[in-house]
Amino acid sequence: MSLGESEKVNPERKLAPDFSKLNGLVAAIAQDAATGEVLMLGFQDQEAWEASLRTGFAHYHSRSRGRLWKKGESSGNVQRIIEIRLDCDQDAVLMIVEQQGGVACHTGRRSCFFNKVEGANLVVSESPAGSGL
Amino acid sequence: MSLGESEKVNPERKLAPDFSKLNGLVAAIAQDAATGEVLMLGFQDQEAWEASLRTGFAHYHSRSRGRLWKKGESSGNVQRIIEIRLDCDQDAVLMIVEQQGGVACHTGRRSCFFNKVEGANLVVSESPAGSGL
Repeated sequence: MSLGESEKVNPERKLAPDFSKLNGLVAAIAQDAATGEVLMLGFQDQEAWEASLRTGFAHYHSRSRGRLWKKGESSGNVQRIIEIRLDCDQDAVLMIVEQQGGVACHTGRRSCFFNKVEGANLVVSESPAGSGL
Repeated sequence: MSLGESEKVNPERKLAPDFSKLNGLVAAIAQDAATGEVLMLGFQDQEAWEASLRTGFAHYHSRSRGRLWKKGESSGNVQRIIEIRLDCDQDAVLMIVEQQGGVACHTGRRSCFFNKVEGANLVVSESPAGSGL
């Protein structure tokens, strides 16, 4: 039976994120629901995953602080989850979010991915919001 | 001096991906240049990062096989890199790619993120290309 046929019979799969491959973590991407822009990448442990599902707001596991981190808990720039997807192996998470304040990055930018590789250099491709640069 | 002012003076930053936080790896996202769809998430070690830069095609480190993996080396569904971005901490990579064959996932789907979380279930939101499902 091909994968396609199997799914035709049973289009629902067991929801079971695999935290075993990365020391209890899965990588979690936040993508802007309005623009499609990739805003940031963080990691979730079981606690952060469940907090995200339960509250509808993106939570991550802060590796530097060693604790649960609700994105925007200090800045107010929370991420309201519109949709959650898991990849084929269930070891990566994609959260499609509404980014409160329009700023995901702690540097004040919309996206954390503002460093564009150009040759051997990184060029900052986006200025912090409101900086007038 | 604020971050904005500092960047006004020196908009170029040193290109130095940080492989130290994840046992020699950084997370690497592939995003479709045409549609903005997030196609997959993999990991890169220094070797995969450099191979990607050098060749212009996405390379990852296969954790299961313990070796350098050129995406599409078997299937032909290679990812031509249009642009590479690094996040604020330089520990995550975003590759904006042209997905050859229109299929990133080994299951035959455009994106690996075809599992949509609905309540306590995963619903397969995309059928394999050409399956007619």
